[in-house]
Amino acid sequence: MKIERFAEGISLKRSVEAGTADQRKAVQDIIYDVRKSGNAALHTYTERFDGVSPGELLVSEQEMEDATAALTAEQLDIIQEAANNIRMFHEKQIRNSWFTTDDTGTMLGQKLTPLDAVGVYVPGGTAAYPSSVLMNALPAKAAGVERIVMVSPPGKDGKLSPAVLAAAKIAGVKEIYKVGGAQAIAALAYGTETIKKVDKIVGPGNIYVALAKREVFGDVAIDMIAGPSEIAILADETAIAAEVAADLLSQAEHDVRACSVLVTTSTSLAEEVASEVTKQVALLPRHDIAAASIRDYGRIVVCGKMAEAVEAINELAPEHLEIVTKDALEIMAKIRHAGAIFIGRFSSEPVGDYFAGPNHVLPTNGTARFSSPLNVDDFQKKSSIIMYSETAFRKNAEKIAAFARMEGLEAHARAIESRSVNESGKGPE
Amino acid sequence: MKIERFAEGISLKRSVEAGTADQRKAVQDIIYDVRKSGNAALHTYTERFDGVSPGELLVSEQEMEDATAALTAEQLDIIQEAANNIRMFHEKQIRNSWFTTDDTGTMLGQKLTPLDAVGVYVPGGTAAYPSSVLMNALPAKAAGVERIVMVSPPGKDGKLSPAVLAAAKIAGVKEIYKVGGAQAIAALAYGTETIKKVDKIVGPGNIYVALAKREVFGDVAIDMIAGPSEIAILADETAIAAEVAADLLSQAEHDVRACSVLVTTSTSLAEEVASEVTKQVALLPRHDIAAASIRDYGRIVVCGKMAEAVEAINELAPEHLEIVTKDALEIMAKIRHAGAIFIGRFSSEPVGDYFAGPNHVLPTNGTARFSSPLNVDDFQKKSSIIMYSETAFRKNAEKIAAFARMEGLEAHARAIESRSVNESGKGPE
Repeated sequence: MKIERFAEGISLKRSVEAGTADQRKAVQDIIYDVRKSGNAALHTYTERFDGVSPGELLVSEQEMEDATAALTAEQLDIIQEAANNIRMFHEKQIRNSWFTTDDTGTMLGQKLTPLDAVGVYVPGGTAAYPSSVLMNALPAKAAGVERIVMVSPPGKDGKLSPAVLAAAKIAGVKEIYKVGGAQAIAALAYGTETIKKVDKIVGPGNIYVALAKREVFGDVAIDMIAGPSEIAILADETAIAAEVAADLLSQAEHDVRACSVLVTTSTSLAEEVASEVTKQVALLPRHDIAAASIRDYGRIVVCGKMAEAVEAINELAPEHLEIVTKDALEIMAKIRHAGAIFIGRFSSEPVGDYFAGPNHVLPTNGTARFSSPLNVDDFQKKSSIIMYSETAFRKNAEKIAAFARMEGLEAHARAIESRSVNESGKGPE
Repeated sequence: MKIERFAEGISLKRSVEAGTADQRKAVQDIIYDVRKSGNAALHTYTERFDGVSPGELLVSEQEMEDATAALTAEQLDIIQEAANNIRMFHEKQIRNSWFTTDDTGTMLGQKLTPLDAVGVYVPGGTAAYPSSVLMNALPAKAAGVERIVMVSPPGKDGKLSPAVLAAAKIAGVKEIYKVGGAQAIAALAYGTETIKKVDKIVGPGNIYVALAKREVFGDVAIDMIAGPSEIAILADETAIAAEVAADLLSQAEHDVRACSVLVTTSTSLAEEVASEVTKQVALLPRHDIAAASIRDYGRIVVCGKMAEAVEAINELAPEHLEIVTKDALEIMAKIRHAGAIFIGRFSSEPVGDYFAGPNHVLPTNGTARFSSPLNVDDFQKKSSIIMYSETAFRKNAEKIAAFARMEGLEAHARAIESRSVNESGKGPE
């Protein structure tokens, strides 16, 4: 890895896949077909893209049992324990409806309601991640969503990954369909004979899934369009180079376009990490991916002062940030933009990917400036509550009418004034 | 208004303006030009679309003072009192960072941070609404956003509406630019020599503004793409027809495509409201707009039972809902989908548009199924905090590594294991 000096205006070289015009057109056509032909279109596209006839779309009880049987007891225990941790962390986020009252009887507040139905997209093939099932489904569960629907493309054998199904079972997801790609997103957004439509779609996917989510956005809610994974490690001379290098590589193995960046105040750490990365990357099974990612998107930035290093991190707004320094909590306080902040030597990033409890669905590509990790708020919505008392109304009616007239909205003013001419009405309060 | 009987699968006839291909192309070109030519493009488009040369883009101190002087003391007092109410309601929504600890020293939590910079779009011309300034800027203020930038197209005199500027002053907005349309959205999203870019853009606008927001979405956050306004009134025989009719018309005057719907268990109320609407609409200054809206999008639905009426409302998921019935609070509890719920005879919808405190920026077009009124959460984002103790790490390291290997991510497992080979390292914790 090349070592560079800090300079203002540092920014990650990032790669956002926007899709080609052809890909967008293909996705629009698929969505159109699913809206028109429903299940028939799902079958056609599954045969075309997944090379398999799915038969029944719905995953059966038997398939769920088979999946569980395919995992070891130890594996099931680990998924279960991770699920418990994730559930606990997300249940702490649940918010209540609230209201204020005044002594005239006016009540104002927010009513919180879980979404009715949420769709979780789970990629298939080599990227079948049980952790992704837990991280997307459990926050919805914690929010109180009654219907959670999972979709995932079948493999060549017509089945879903046992680990994915086992994770779904542990997460309490019961409605699972063997369909993937843009066609699955269309089915979730608009419904078919078999799959009732949902209110929100979450979960990662390939470029076609991402484009389809963007296409249906507005008709249903979506989580975010995730980019390649990123890690920034903020470290000083107290960090251990072999550990820093291993953590950088844990992101790099995800994708040739993943970004791994070390920002440090220590020139000697910078040099040691560079050499450790070279040593370790050669030994990885996903060597080609990790090496390409480090070559194209890996960076080591040396800063003269910790204040500069903090500035660099806020400029980057990374998805994952590790702080491995003296006084790491004080530094954390100065970080304004990061999806997840891992503090101290023992908070290696995979701790959060799988197990600690916080979500691993995080804002990428600098969107940590304005976005949050997937959380319970994403599955609860608010309705404002306004119960105005007669006293409050009489006191403020003239002002409200005057405000409406300032904006030229006479009917608004008259709606207020209609109450004044009905002083002794048969009003319901 | 035509009176219809309740039938399952009721849904509002709604009109969503998606824009034509030509409009989308025009917006893309404008954005491209602003990114390339900055201020020069802003001047060109302002001259072309607003028919005026804006001179300095930034609104001067003098212009702010002139605006305030143009309003009466009474008008300023009303705006100030509304601002106080809105501020108070939104300050109640502010959330704190939180964390949990366990006795091994592990700390997990969420760090909440206000966005750095927010742009507020304020329409110009005849739709210059000071209330819109308050409703968009004050939640951002309450969240702690330091930089709030307002943009609005200048009138033929090269100036902004005095009421809009006065509201901005009261809301504490100091950075205001005389530029509107897609060019203003592009400037906020990407920056020019004069206008530094922001992290999120909120506020209503015409079709070009809406398309531009959709176009820049992802590079910055946006609030929502608002559709025409909607009101549903759920009323029984205790409601007063003249008041119900006046409230329906207060939405209808906004837009020929606004939706006004009465859902009632009372046939006689239905008939009285229909005749009141006819009577009142004729007397409105914006008669043409209101009459067209009522003709094309107005409905009266009569239900046999209150349970049906509640079902109808949840099916509609209206932007505004008034409940004017006996036991209105019990009925409110059953409403799952509505942007704002107005309870009782004295909670006429304009009470919420201007004065009570809750936000008037609300989800339209059925998106109340999954979206919320504009609120403080929209201007704060979260970062996950993970500080794993050495004890927790040692206890769980093997499980985390095993989970990573279940997903085929060997470098993740090795990142965890790199800590084990460094037991007595110079680690910083």
